[in-house]
Amino acid sequence: MKEYIIKDEWNIIEEGFDPAVNEVSESIFSIGNGRMGQRANFEERYSGKSLQGSYVAGVYYPDKTRVGWWKNGYPEYFAKVINAANWIGIDVWIDGETLDLATVEVSNFKRVLNMREGYLQRSFEATLSHCAKVEVQSTRLCSLVDDEAGAIRYSIKALSGDIHVKMSPYLDGNISNRDSNYDEQFWNLIDKKQGSQSASLLMETKKTAFWVATAMQYAILVDEEIVEVDEVDRDEDKLVGKVLEFPLAKGQQITLLKYAVNLSSENHAKQVLSAKAEETLQKVATKGFDKMKEEQAKAWQEKWAESDIVIEGDVAAQQAIRFNIFQLNQTYTGEDARLNIGPKGFTGEKYGGVTYWDTEAYCVPFYLATAEPHVARNLLIYRYNHLQKAIENAEKLGFRDGAALYPMVTMNGEECHNEWEITFEEIHRNAAIAFAIFNYIRYTGDEHYLVEYGLEVLVAISRFWAQRVNWSGAKGQYVMLGVTGPNEYENNVNNNWYTSYMAMWCLEYTLESLDKVKQLDAGRFDEILDKTSFNLDKEPLRWQHIRDNMYLGEDKELGIFLQQDNYLDKEQILVKDLPVEDRPLNQKWSWDRILRSCYIKQADVLQGIYFLEDRFDLETIKRNYDFYEPRTVHESSLSPCVHAILAAKLGDGERAYQFYLRTARLDLDDYNNDTEDGLHITSMAGTWMSVVEGFAGMRVRNGKLTFHPFITENWKSYAFHVRFRGAKLYVKIAHEQVHISNEGKVAEVMINDMLYTILPGDRVAVNLESV
Amino acid sequence: MKEYIIKDEWNIIEEGFDPAVNEVSESIFSIGNGRMGQRANFEERYSGKSLQGSYVAGVYYPDKTRVGWWKNGYPEYFAKVINAANWIGIDVWIDGETLDLATVEVSNFKRVLNMREGYLQRSFEATLSHCAKVEVQSTRLCSLVDDEAGAIRYSIKALSGDIHVKMSPYLDGNISNRDSNYDEQFWNLIDKKQGSQSASLLMETKKTAFWVATAMQYAILVDEEIVEVDEVDRDEDKLVGKVLEFPLAKGQQITLLKYAVNLSSENHAKQVLSAKAEETLQKVATKGFDKMKEEQAKAWQEKWAESDIVIEGDVAAQQAIRFNIFQLNQTYTGEDARLNIGPKGFTGEKYGGVTYWDTEAYCVPFYLATAEPHVARNLLIYRYNHLQKAIENAEKLGFRDGAALYPMVTMNGEECHNEWEITFEEIHRNAAIAFAIFNYIRYTGDEHYLVEYGLEVLVAISRFWAQRVNWSGAKGQYVMLGVTGPNEYENNVNNNWYTSYMAMWCLEYTLESLDKVKQLDAGRFDEILDKTSFNLDKEPLRWQHIRDNMYLGEDKELGIFLQQDNYLDKEQILVKDLPVEDRPLNQKWSWDRILRSCYIKQADVLQGIYFLEDRFDLETIKRNYDFYEPRTVHESSLSPCVHAILAAKLGDGERAYQFYLRTARLDLDDYNNDTEDGLHITSMAGTWMSVVEGFAGMRVRNGKLTFHPFITENWKSYAFHVRFRGAKLYVKIAHEQVHISNEGKVAEVMINDMLYTILPGDRVAVNLESV
Repeated sequence: MKEYIIKDEWNIIEEGFDPAVNEVSESIFSIGNGRMGQRANFEERYSGKSLQGSYVAGVYYPDKTRVGWWKNGYPEYFAKVINAANWIGIDVWIDGETLDLATVEVSNFKRVLNMREGYLQRSFEATLSHCAKVEVQSTRLCSLVDDEAGAIRYSIKALSGDIHVKMSPYLDGNISNRDSNYDEQFWNLIDKKQGSQSASLLMETKKTAFWVATAMQYAILVDEEIVEVDEVDRDEDKLVGKVLEFPLAKGQQITLLKYAVNLSSENHAKQVLSAKAEETLQKVATKGFDKMKEEQAKAWQEKWAESDIVIEGDVAAQQAIRFNIFQLNQTYTGEDARLNIGPKGFTGEKYGGVTYWDTEAYCVPFYLATAEPHVARNLLIYRYNHLQKAIENAEKLGFRDGAALYPMVTMNGEECHNEWEITFEEIHRNAAIAFAIFNYIRYTGDEHYLVEYGLEVLVAISRFWAQRVNWSGAKGQYVMLGVTGPNEYENNVNNNWYTSYMAMWCLEYTLESLDKVKQLDAGRFDEILDKTSFNLDKEPLRWQHIRDNMYLGEDKELGIFLQQDNYLDKEQILVKDLPVEDRPLNQKWSWDRILRSCYIKQADVLQGIYFLEDRFDLETIKRNYDFYEPRTVHESSLSPCVHAILAAKLGDGERAYQFYLRTARLDLDDYNNDTEDGLHITSMAGTWMSVVEGFAGMRVRNGKLTFHPFITENWKSYAFHVRFRGAKLYVKIAHEQVHISNEGKVAEVMINDMLYTILPGDRVAVNLESV
Repeated sequence: MKEYIIKDEWNIIEEGFDPAVNEVSESIFSIGNGRMGQRANFEERYSGKSLQGSYVAGVYYPDKTRVGWWKNGYPEYFAKVINAANWIGIDVWIDGETLDLATVEVSNFKRVLNMREGYLQRSFEATLSHCAKVEVQSTRLCSLVDDEAGAIRYSIKALSGDIHVKMSPYLDGNISNRDSNYDEQFWNLIDKKQGSQSASLLMETKKTAFWVATAMQYAILVDEEIVEVDEVDRDEDKLVGKVLEFPLAKGQQITLLKYAVNLSSENHAKQVLSAKAEETLQKVATKGFDKMKEEQAKAWQEKWAESDIVIEGDVAAQQAIRFNIFQLNQTYTGEDARLNIGPKGFTGEKYGGVTYWDTEAYCVPFYLATAEPHVARNLLIYRYNHLQKAIENAEKLGFRDGAALYPMVTMNGEECHNEWEITFEEIHRNAAIAFAIFNYIRYTGDEHYLVEYGLEVLVAISRFWAQRVNWSGAKGQYVMLGVTGPNEYENNVNNNWYTSYMAMWCLEYTLESLDKVKQLDAGRFDEILDKTSFNLDKEPLRWQHIRDNMYLGEDKELGIFLQQDNYLDKEQILVKDLPVEDRPLNQKWSWDRILRSCYIKQADVLQGIYFLEDRFDLETIKRNYDFYEPRTVHESSLSPCVHAILAAKLGDGERAYQFYLRTARLDLDDYNNDTEDGLHITSMAGTWMSVVEGFAGMRVRNGKLTFHPFITENWKSYAFHVRFRGAKLYVKIAHEQVHISNEGKVAEVMINDMLYTILPGDRVAVNLESV
């Protein structure tokens, strides 16, 4: 854990240069716009520790899967989002010496991520070996408006005397991933060009043959006026750029504006890609840096108007929640159903930038509430579009007749996780994908989604479950053997309650959905039956039989659901009784010891109770919570939010607040000592849920939004925006009152079980004590 | 399955050249002497499919372990025996054209492995593109007498007219493993030298820094007379050699004798390694090829006198059993306690040439019976010498206080298997190592081994078991969670009967051994207590408590031991009811499907019954055999032998014979379609066991050898040699009679429960019907 980030409501601030945390800061100060992402690497060369990262959405490399022993069904490759051409680079030499923060003396270093307006700023003073001193300021953004473009304003001021400055803006395709095997490079150069004040690269990924055109243009300002300077071309292997030289008198400042674009063949035909890049580059360069920055502020203003959470009385919490929301909005904008949300977004290499069940389980609620419905819908359509691949994936494992197993990890719908205990066994992801359909429809009321897309996915998933269980002669029930639940600190267990319960629910929901679609659109219903070769006589009957006869472990004496068979055979020592130096277990214990222990990585039984809360009475929830929470080590960033929400539900607001704290500043304070790898993007949605579903107790019941608000003593108030079926609500919860205003359509809202109708433009205030 | 090997009692014969089976033949016709091993690659260049393999015992490379996700406790490297410098190479050009069996026309190709005398012979005729025809004959051996040396006699005869022959004997260090990652090479060249008619390489392995000096010398014979020819040095990177040219008149033959030595820094100091190699080379070259071949025949004669099995009336069976014995003797000679027996010996890269539990479970009995006691004893001492590393290995996983977990796979005592479900969980290997101590002492009567070495190992192993179990509050017994039994088609199961039972037995045997050592040598006993910081008050008590309260699953109704918890929840379809096209499962089914099925890869419960047979009554054995055998797919080469022995024990000789057939010609007929990777060396010992322990029913009981012979209708008789406590018995079993002769000390032998005393030089005959 580190605590060097300066607390501020709208800005993330680092003061003073500490190379030891540079990679952490590179993650935290990342910028992105859903199409491209850029770690907070320096523009100038830096020979210290740094993880270079420029990512272009959807462009990946199918890396050789690394396993000791190959077995049938193992995926062929591991998809990774790859480091693309460096577009931010500006080499600087002062009087012939390289400006490199690892070698010069640095003072007054400051890095600011302006979340309100969406840009990154950095300033510092550098004293070179011959004592010349300069001041550098840079501002960088990835434009939300021109989402294939980024821009940099980079100024150097001579502080100590006359100096000679050499600057070289460049594009560099000589890049690799840190996690590449044997330093393999993933890119081939197809073309490079030099123009007047511009240069470009056309690169192709190996194997996948994605093309990315990266182009740059620059301008030089002296005293804020554009000046002409002589340029010399720079051309080194896969690097193109310009070299510029100028004398700088003491006190004088020179500014380089650099515009860069990244266009991928995912969005443009290959034959026009270079021309399109040129066109886009001209467009933004003509627009100019100031205008881009102004548009950026406006675009972010609109994002914040939908998604901001305001916390009064706690700057640390305010900063943290905005940081989470900012990064979520930087990662996914919902305009392209081919994209999804990697656990680290565009902020690092780890987890390969690929899609996990995190999206359905944690991210969908955020986007449902804070963006137009098509944003969350596109996340669902992403899976719909991968249905055929999910069926093929199941076939590889031996399933038949249209059963689908969605991949644990994917880029294009193919499985690319390579641990059998996850790939083949952490099959509960299928249930999360079904649940997201249910959740989306419950929230939006868009039942037609079931007709258009949802039912096909549900049928394929239910077919999987129906084949994945087997009848146990010994038990006289259906069992689900050899699975891994959300608690990945156990693998290959039998009858994981979460998985079995969710499977049972999937079958039930699919059966209901069949009826629903038949009712809504009989023609389409027949079409689906036909398309899926559905056996209306047999399949529903079998599903119903499994649903009614699923083995679900429980311990009657303790009154709890049993996480899996044999769980109570384990040595039951509570987390609180573990020596503090043993934590986190995943760093201190061998995998062997972890597997055999009773410790739970993340909510498992409780995850199921969270998803399907209304099916359990409060006493049952409490018993399970009281049993499992003390055995949970929360070593997944996705765990505390679920516990926060359930704790709040059980009326234990203070514990909910403790869990909230654990998730909200996870990256800002580098809790798990791994922020340098990238930010925990998907768990940031969990933080949002902790506030909205946890503290505010927001649920959808019978088509209505309901709230059961709680506020911690530590805050004066908190407020958030939610869209709901045309209503645009702003909910503010203080200690005495809840205010809800509405700028959309009329809304019926339950607050602590009382119904309120809020007309457009209207506002209700509910006195909390009076409830 | 292939059946191209010509059946012969003493020779393995291939006639006709079929490139499609070349790699299979390269494995089958491998030669070795315990110190070095050589696949049957051609001397001349071959551009067709070939797995080059020259191996030097004990020289390995710690390859980067390949796993998707690293977790604490995973081994750092995977040790592999590596392809060493090619010492057999002789390039040949006829009239300027390369002699390459992939490009010339080949006729009369014949390959013969002479097992009686221990050499490989090959002959063929080749017609080159301009129609010149030559006859080539080569003979090659790895000397048992000079075990760092090999020799080749390579003749070319001009058949069709006068020709010009260019020959180049060489050593080539430009070699790699087929299984190396990214074609990484494992060797650096340290030195190379040219001499008159000689050349040498000094190579060093990367990382491990083993040195191997490889040197060669040649001579040319015309009409069997040594002639002088002009030589030209050849020097290409890591290749050194000579080029020789001569005209050859029609009908004339020229012969190249090539002597080569491989000396490793495991056996000589580095500074003298090259000189030693030169010395050894001179020694064998002076001795000459014919003398070496003569000595080889004599050395093999001695091996056969100890270990031959003679089968009358079945050439295929005779050839097969000799092949198995021949390869076992080529792989391990028992003179060096640092060496062990890799599953593929020196015949391929697979399994890295490293040590598995195969040694203790399958190989020890063979060497116990067919060689002097020090041979098997050295296999035990290998583990004793690794005890400290086994303790460290356990510590890495969190075990304490001198508990040892022997590695699943090792070269030098460190674990280098990299699948958690095996590495951490297939812990029954510890029991096999303890069992080998018991078995060795039971066989040899050498109780002093316990005093000197055995007890320390047993204590460390029992400490492991005592920490590895945990008390289950739910069961009120000790449970063993998260293990993988011998049946690797299930991973991470709970309460695997075999593992738990063997652990219980280990505790019991260690407790007995403590008493025994105290009795035999009280001083040494105190020394061991001291050395191991043994707590005499607490440890035996705890061990006894675990031994008495170990949970061992059984199904009372079926009257069987339960392979593991939940086994009966699986769908129970017998192997015979599986579609034939689904077999072998490991090639046809996904790993997911295999794991969830009831199918057993190799004997598991039955392995335990085999080891500790005397603890179970015949009815119990029969019930378990009848239940598990029909569920076993025998997809490990180590499975059929155990079933053969138990079937014979249960009086089902014909079934035992069927199992024997499955194991005996496994490689000769390439049953599993994988002989090209190398031979199944360790399972060859299982074949031997099938005959001696299966058909002949040999056991040690109360310090006496006992037999319960059975003979299949398909054989006239079979006979084998066994050493036993100074006696040297030759046992011949025909349909009517058993003859046992004795060339050693007096022996008391039970045949079908009758006691016979056989004096030195004497012989008994027992009429089988009369018993």
